[in-house]
Amino acid sequence: MSSLLSSIDSPADLRRLTRQQLPVLAKELRDFVLESVSRTGGHLSSNLGTVELTVALHYVFNTPEDRLVWDVGHQTYPHKILTGRRDRMSTLRQLGGISGFPRRDESEFDTFGTAHSSTSISAALGMALAAKMKGESRHAVAIIGDGAMTAGMAFEALNNAGVEDGRLLVVLNDNDMSISPPVGALNRYLAQLMSGQFYAAAKNVGKTVLKGAPPLFELAKRLEEHAKGMVVPATLFEKFGFNYVGPIDGHDLDSLIPTLENIRHLLDNGEGPQFLHVVTRKGQGYKLAEADPVAYHGPGKFDPAVGLVKPATPPKPTFTQVFGQWLCDMAQKDPLLVGITPAMREGSGMVEFHQRFPGRYFDVGIAEQHAVTFAAGLACEGMKPVVAIYSTFLQRAYDQLIHDVALQNLPMVFALDRAGIVGADGATHAGAYDIAFLRCVPNMSIACPADEAETRQLLSTAHAQNHPVAVRYPRGSGVGVAVPDGLEGLPFGKGEVRRRGRRIAILAFGTLLYPALQAAQALDATVANMRWAKPLDVDLLREIAETHDALVTVEEGCVMGGAGSAVLEALQTLGIDRPVLTLGLPDVFTEHGDPAKLLAAMGLDASGIERSIQARFPDQRGDAAGLKVA
Amino acid sequence: MSSLLSSIDSPADLRRLTRQQLPVLAKELRDFVLESVSRTGGHLSSNLGTVELTVALHYVFNTPEDRLVWDVGHQTYPHKILTGRRDRMSTLRQLGGISGFPRRDESEFDTFGTAHSSTSISAALGMALAAKMKGESRHAVAIIGDGAMTAGMAFEALNNAGVEDGRLLVVLNDNDMSISPPVGALNRYLAQLMSGQFYAAAKNVGKTVLKGAPPLFELAKRLEEHAKGMVVPATLFEKFGFNYVGPIDGHDLDSLIPTLENIRHLLDNGEGPQFLHVVTRKGQGYKLAEADPVAYHGPGKFDPAVGLVKPATPPKPTFTQVFGQWLCDMAQKDPLLVGITPAMREGSGMVEFHQRFPGRYFDVGIAEQHAVTFAAGLACEGMKPVVAIYSTFLQRAYDQLIHDVALQNLPMVFALDRAGIVGADGATHAGAYDIAFLRCVPNMSIACPADEAETRQLLSTAHAQNHPVAVRYPRGSGVGVAVPDGLEGLPFGKGEVRRRGRRIAILAFGTLLYPALQAAQALDATVANMRWAKPLDVDLLREIAETHDALVTVEEGCVMGGAGSAVLEALQTLGIDRPVLTLGLPDVFTEHGDPAKLLAAMGLDASGIERSIQARFPDQRGDAAGLKVA
Repeated sequence: MSSLLSSIDSPADLRRLTRQQLPVLAKELRDFVLESVSRTGGHLSSNLGTVELTVALHYVFNTPEDRLVWDVGHQTYPHKILTGRRDRMSTLRQLGGISGFPRRDESEFDTFGTAHSSTSISAALGMALAAKMKGESRHAVAIIGDGAMTAGMAFEALNNAGVEDGRLLVVLNDNDMSISPPVGALNRYLAQLMSGQFYAAAKNVGKTVLKGAPPLFELAKRLEEHAKGMVVPATLFEKFGFNYVGPIDGHDLDSLIPTLENIRHLLDNGEGPQFLHVVTRKGQGYKLAEADPVAYHGPGKFDPAVGLVKPATPPKPTFTQVFGQWLCDMAQKDPLLVGITPAMREGSGMVEFHQRFPGRYFDVGIAEQHAVTFAAGLACEGMKPVVAIYSTFLQRAYDQLIHDVALQNLPMVFALDRAGIVGADGATHAGAYDIAFLRCVPNMSIACPADEAETRQLLSTAHAQNHPVAVRYPRGSGVGVAVPDGLEGLPFGKGEVRRRGRRIAILAFGTLLYPALQAAQALDATVANMRWAKPLDVDLLREIAETHDALVTVEEGCVMGGAGSAVLEALQTLGIDRPVLTLGLPDVFTEHGDPAKLLAAMGLDASGIERSIQARFPDQRGDAAGLKVA
Repeated sequence: MSSLLSSIDSPADLRRLTRQQLPVLAKELRDFVLESVSRTGGHLSSNLGTVELTVALHYVFNTPEDRLVWDVGHQTYPHKILTGRRDRMSTLRQLGGISGFPRRDESEFDTFGTAHSSTSISAALGMALAAKMKGESRHAVAIIGDGAMTAGMAFEALNNAGVEDGRLLVVLNDNDMSISPPVGALNRYLAQLMSGQFYAAAKNVGKTVLKGAPPLFELAKRLEEHAKGMVVPATLFEKFGFNYVGPIDGHDLDSLIPTLENIRHLLDNGEGPQFLHVVTRKGQGYKLAEADPVAYHGPGKFDPAVGLVKPATPPKPTFTQVFGQWLCDMAQKDPLLVGITPAMREGSGMVEFHQRFPGRYFDVGIAEQHAVTFAAGLACEGMKPVVAIYSTFLQRAYDQLIHDVALQNLPMVFALDRAGIVGADGATHAGAYDIAFLRCVPNMSIACPADEAETRQLLSTAHAQNHPVAVRYPRGSGVGVAVPDGLEGLPFGKGEVRRRGRRIAILAFGTLLYPALQAAQALDATVANMRWAKPLDVDLLREIAETHDALVTVEEGCVMGGAGSAVLEALQTLGIDRPVLTLGLPDVFTEHGDPAKLLAAMGLDASGIERSIQARFPDQRGDAAGLKVA
């Protein structure tokens, strides 16, 4: 253990260091982050970029009395390490371990749970104004990246904060790179702000760092004259009522600390909301990550000396890749297809589509609301939009989906990636609710493919409809079913029986079909692959219900209001009276951890499904008298 | 019928007029709007403000080939009148009549259905880029108010549009007044833009108009020299990549038409996205509305010569008023209570609260996302936020509710007004989905008061909880139950039996309790007032289910995934097997019209409920052999 860092168990320890010790601490902290992430996997580039900023903020502000709100929050590993969680970094993002994001129940230094983008200014403003109302003198600081600034929510917060007089500081952590390359007019503007002398100097320093020659501290000193006290008035942010300071070098503690101290005084003197523009580099200090910050955005385990290596055998294709391939193939066939992503080109599998069809590819920034209504506008003119969006992020565009798409019944495909549990990212990213929140919307259809082949086929079916259709598929890969080359769809709204058994019928919605099939063997149960949560295949349901004693629904989505609930409703409408066991995600937020373990813990693996069925319908096997219901 | 207007059956007719005829037409159009709205009720101030702008847009642009997208859309009466719907204005907002908003299925001139704020730039950008991809030369024009510009979605669209090169024009219709007085930094900035010489002149003209002296046309001419060709560079909007033109007088056709013609040429010459800043006055030309545009925002029927008159006998208090009174009373008692509205002070009943507790009142602008997360920040610091929001607008903050509030289990009250059908505003404003989309969210509770007294009581219950609670209540007034003075709550999560009957039990969620009680008399059915859609009162449900042959659920919300669905799920969990008839809003978008008629048409009045029960359970009366299920 490095000597300085090992003495820091809280920011109070940090604040006892001298200014001269801080660069040494920063170096140790950076080394610790790299070493730690290489062992656990997790977010890397963003955390290497926030080392000095984290040190400076905790050094200048009196945390936890002062509130730091980290936007998105995947850049908080240095913060976690400095706030008493150094030893627990080895448990990061694992079941029972610490979260990869700030969590209020994890530490008093995590003042606000984040993960979705662009919430920090709103939350910090609330904290600042609460302090004002309560007569407390604490400061609230939001730290937000340039990518997150493109979301409308950040703008709403700036617009509101600029006319309030809390002790609020917004730190723009400008690294010119969100997960995908940044887009939009705001980003172009930020680039203009940095196009002056200072930025040129900073870039030169960057090059020198890349050469690996002198240590960061000395380089930073050479920048001091440029960076200190630079105040550029009349920027965009000034127009929103903030006092704008910057841009300053976010890796230079000798810029950061005096500037933050000055700003703290301004806040204490009632000078109103402050805005600090800090320039950092993702991956700073680890050459491989600096050279390819996208690859090192969220790596798995790796050897820092070697870097990422391609696996010897190519893994099974992910659902994301199946979507990406379908998108290219369908775009080749249909010149009206357009693809839209809210800043998730890589995550949604759209890199190849972007390269091959640049004129029909639209990355609108972190702007889910705009993405959906923009797509609606395209659909009005006869284009065929495919909006690729994570299930959890569609929550951001729920009103637009209802009001602009479904109400007008516009033909549009929503490719909902990360539907179901998501593993290491945890509750904030779980795609648990989409079936429930989409099912209640008139005109919407929801397809739940069971495997890779059906994902492609149901996307084709969705694309062929004259109304909006969501196709939901989980993170990662499926059972490995071969994906057909063609673009034929499956019948709209129709399921199929996959196994004929007796008395008990399992109705599977989505990829849990496969554990359901396993469970059915021991039970000799019938299994239907329902494929559509809406419209429900009522004919199939009737036939199955009439020929079985009990039904079981299985889905990787919340039980409340989900596909199982749709079955209950349909049985009442049909006037068929059968006991139904609804299996799915319980009414609690799912923790982070290994997806297979999580599913098993929730009883959604094969043996769990079998156990649940036996518990509810205990006498189903070999009992000629029929079924008992527990 | 006035002579010019009666000859205009489409914008093509309008475009055959001479420039000199246009002011006459505008006057006739304004008179027609006033006369028409005074007979039907509807939106007035905003439509009087857009008369000249509407004339000018249809005169300069080749509609419907060019696309006009009207943000919010309640200002489109002049547009409707000029596009072939003059004679149908008498059916406005009535069952079977034309909508108060643009609708694609109503006219080819309604290119995009709007009603919720701030969607127009996104949609128009989609249309402009679709035209570009298809090689079509049409223009797309978004017309958006200054209030709507505060929503993040508009910012997302500007940010995206500024880097795309479609033939897009954004017209900012700056009337310095959304429904509530405008707030936020952007508005302050717009005021600055207008603080120069031009704006001063415009204000003087305004005063003269108020004196009622010379006709508008001559006044407008006096402004001509100021208004024509004014181009102020380097504004906020220029930073977003738009060419900014303005501000110009939006009531001066001699400014509007040449400016729009110039802009059309710029678009055709590939000059990129254009931004026109137009200043208008809500209520223009009708002195009473100019003097009090809020009162005339959405009046009922009235005599234009007299204006609005207070009804002789005060009407029953609305649910909105019951909420407003509770808010003041609870704020008096609890100094930690804070009230938050996204720009709906009047509509949400918060005027008195604002006046009495200005330091704890926050109007954040049309910014639902920020409103919820800002409130979450306040809650983190121990404040007790009450977010007053229409059910339909909560859809805009769904992700924030899940990710920032429910996941962190923060104590917060959502006062959901306009839950259920809303009458004249129609499908876009229906609060149909909140039970379904909130029920699936862990940690959320949902209270459904049956009347005015319970609304107050359940708000108190909600305020006392340590987790987020939504209290949903409908538009308008209830049965007129006396509201208690106290602040005692009702038991959390508990319902009550209101009528003891036999065999059939009706479980009512919300205000449909009263028609259910009526229906129960003829049926001799039991009626429970369930009060909570989540948590469901499972003890009460068990007791009722065990003592009755069949259950009926009634709610003013979507049946799919709603409270009835919760009952179905709970019965399965309890292992109780009873037929259940679930009554509520069907899986279609509800049209506009009189609420009582709409409810009756959906079978949700007393006789409809009775009919549905008799149809499903035909033999329930006086048949000792028990119940038959249809």
